[in-house]
Amino acid sequence: MTMISRQELTELRASIDNIDAAVIHLLAERFRCTKAVGALKAREGLPATDPNREASQVKRLRSLASLSGLDPDFAEKFLTFTIEEVIRHHRSIADGLDGQTRV
Amino acid sequence: MTMISRQELTELRASIDNIDAAVIHLLAERFRCTKAVGALKAREGLPATDPNREASQVKRLRSLASLSGLDPDFAEKFLTFTIEEVIRHHRSIADGLDGQTRV
Repeated sequence: MTMISRQELTELRASIDNIDAAVIHLLAERFRCTKAVGALKAREGLPATDPNREASQVKRLRSLASLSGLDPDFAEKFLTFTIEEVIRHHRSIADGLDGQTRV
Repeated sequence: MTMISRQELTELRASIDNIDAAVIHLLAERFRCTKAVGALKAREGLPATDPNREASQVKRLRSLASLSGLDPDFAEKFLTFTIEEVIRHHRSIADGLDGQTRV
């Protein structure tokens, strides 16, 4: 690899690392929000999943992805991946509450 | 659901939607960077994957996740999920270059 290419690779990787740090912190904040949603749903006895909400999120994120030059299919896969984790959290919160009521 | 809970859910979802918009735009920028890395690697004949780089990314993101209160396992899953997409891109860029050299 030429020295210019090596330098170019180092610069690009520094940008990727900065972006990843930002995304990790945003995901941390997203899970703080979804944990609060999970607690609220468990308190109100609402189901962990909400197909209407998810459909509107998919539509919106695909549209935002198109605007920003991201593959809309990837944006949808990302949302599905994240929602699966959220639902796993919601179910464990709901199970926790069930556990409490049994005590 | 009580009116207070409904309002609380609406507010939390507005935050989640804002965070998702930010993440989508960051991912768009991340893929702009990784596409440039892909083009550079294809030009230099470097392999699409780089296990040392990936190991150091996993270590760093797990550490950032711990600091920000995100489950480190989720951070690692997110990175793996993103890198899989990137490698798919790199391979298709490399295949495109191979195609050009055959013409």
